[in-house]
Amino acid sequence: MVTLLIHFDDEQAAAARLAQASGIPAACIERHRFPDDELRLRLPLDAQGRLPEQLVLYRSLDRPNDKLIELMLVSRQARELGARHLTLVAPYLAYMRQDMAFHPGEVVSQKIVGRFLADLFDAVITVDPHLHRIRTLDEAIPLPYAISLSGAPMLADLIARHHDKPLLIGPDAESAQWVEAAAQVHGFDHGVCTKQRHGDKAVEIALPAVDVKGRAVVLLDDVASSGHTLAMAAGLLLEAGAATVDVAVTHALFAGNALSLIRLAGVRHIWSTDCIAHESNAIEMAPVLAAAWRSINVTSI
Amino acid sequence: MVTLLIHFDDEQAAAARLAQASGIPAACIERHRFPDDELRLRLPLDAQGRLPEQLVLYRSLDRPNDKLIELMLVSRQARELGARHLTLVAPYLAYMRQDMAFHPGEVVSQKIVGRFLADLFDAVITVDPHLHRIRTLDEAIPLPYAISLSGAPMLADLIARHHDKPLLIGPDAESAQWVEAAAQVHGFDHGVCTKQRHGDKAVEIALPAVDVKGRAVVLLDDVASSGHTLAMAAGLLLEAGAATVDVAVTHALFAGNALSLIRLAGVRHIWSTDCIAHESNAIEMAPVLAAAWRSINVTSI
Repeated sequence: MVTLLIHFDDEQAAAARLAQASGIPAACIERHRFPDDELRLRLPLDAQGRLPEQLVLYRSLDRPNDKLIELMLVSRQARELGARHLTLVAPYLAYMRQDMAFHPGEVVSQKIVGRFLADLFDAVITVDPHLHRIRTLDEAIPLPYAISLSGAPMLADLIARHHDKPLLIGPDAESAQWVEAAAQVHGFDHGVCTKQRHGDKAVEIALPAVDVKGRAVVLLDDVASSGHTLAMAAGLLLEAGAATVDVAVTHALFAGNALSLIRLAGVRHIWSTDCIAHESNAIEMAPVLAAAWRSINVTSI
Repeated sequence: MVTLLIHFDDEQAAAARLAQASGIPAACIERHRFPDDELRLRLPLDAQGRLPEQLVLYRSLDRPNDKLIELMLVSRQARELGARHLTLVAPYLAYMRQDMAFHPGEVVSQKIVGRFLADLFDAVITVDPHLHRIRTLDEAIPLPYAISLSGAPMLADLIARHHDKPLLIGPDAESAQWVEAAAQVHGFDHGVCTKQRHGDKAVEIALPAVDVKGRAVVLLDDVASSGHTLAMAAGLLLEAGAATVDVAVTHALFAGNALSLIRLAGVRHIWSTDCIAHESNAIEMAPVLAAAWRSINVTSI
């Protein structure tokens, strides 16, 4: 079946890496924003004016609302134009954190956005979605192919190239799954902080009962968002005698002044995967994403 | 059936006017934006922690992408919490202009957004949607109640209070339906310019074959967006000897510097309905919207 990878102009580089790793051609979706903020999108057709039957859409869903509308417009029109198999490669998946109503009446956006994506695509591939209270991605995105990869093993390899005996620390209980996965690869020492959150930016944390004196510590998590927790943990670790503190995350969201907060706290290296394009990107996910894509048996969906 | 009008904090005033005109209580949806631009929404429940069976959601859809995601989150969660009848009152409806593929591969967003709304709501009420190549709103939003109201009669009444024998001019062929509707109410003279568009902001227009010398001209259209066409038409009318030029529109989008462009062209009054909140608002749509809402037989949907 003829396959095309389609993407937007602001993700040309990452999409080109995936296209090369997958051995399929890539083409850009034309996007125009009207003065009133509406979008006009145009799908790339071949010389005969046709769209291939199988499409892979590359779209990382950080700052997601505009992009979710784009996904809807693109996938619905692609079906209209004859596409039969649509795979979404969204290295960063949005709205996975609101997985229950913390207060009565709250919108459980994980479930709603998950169902929205399941309605639009036949398969979804993502990396380290923030699943906390559910175990597998298909509980959020009900599809036969809802593939969740992890950046942790590659972050572990990167850390091993820089440090002989690093100590991996997770900034909160939710990071434990990633810290443990990364630590396991090379048998790194590890521990996890405990955190109490009072609003978006007000957090208190306590270090785990591990001696950090003289250690090369790497703070590891799935995502760096406001940067407050990572900065606070780095400060505590250095106070407690850590020799160095680096940060390694799958998703480099770094909202607002997050990056400078973390640097000001004394963090030396900041490493991330290219799931979200960012100056800290040190790992290319394309080979892993391509392997996951090849594992999908399109004739069965 | 108990009914509640729900709205967002940035449309408190317009929603309160509709609630009063409809005789139903109103409550605000709590909205929090995380540092990474995701939204956390919370529906207003009663003292017993319940949501009424019938909800009216007020949301004007200018600058629409964020708001369309809000609509999805609110309506899906409302159904989850027991709401059975959901009416969307969207005085301004987005994505109605892209009603065909002007180039191969283009997304026909009118159809896709229309279907999206039809999936979420039982009824939609709007004002002067930009329908050009389709005749009725339910062709875009396939629902038994897809109600399209018009601001033109009330704009005509307003104009009649200011001018004895105004000349209504539409800036392009697409405005003819609104110009004719407004002119008919009081028997005003009227005409329509012809326009050629070369991109978003490059337009050429020609005045209709009507003597404008010494006339009080009112430029009338459904929406003022970039303001370029209205400003250009105003300039031509004044050059051709019009005594005064005012502008009357249903939807005060006024993107970017549109308002100052129009004022610089010599336009005196700028009038709009409150479908989109704006300093030019001169007409309240609440009574008409409330009447339309009352016309919906909820037991049948």
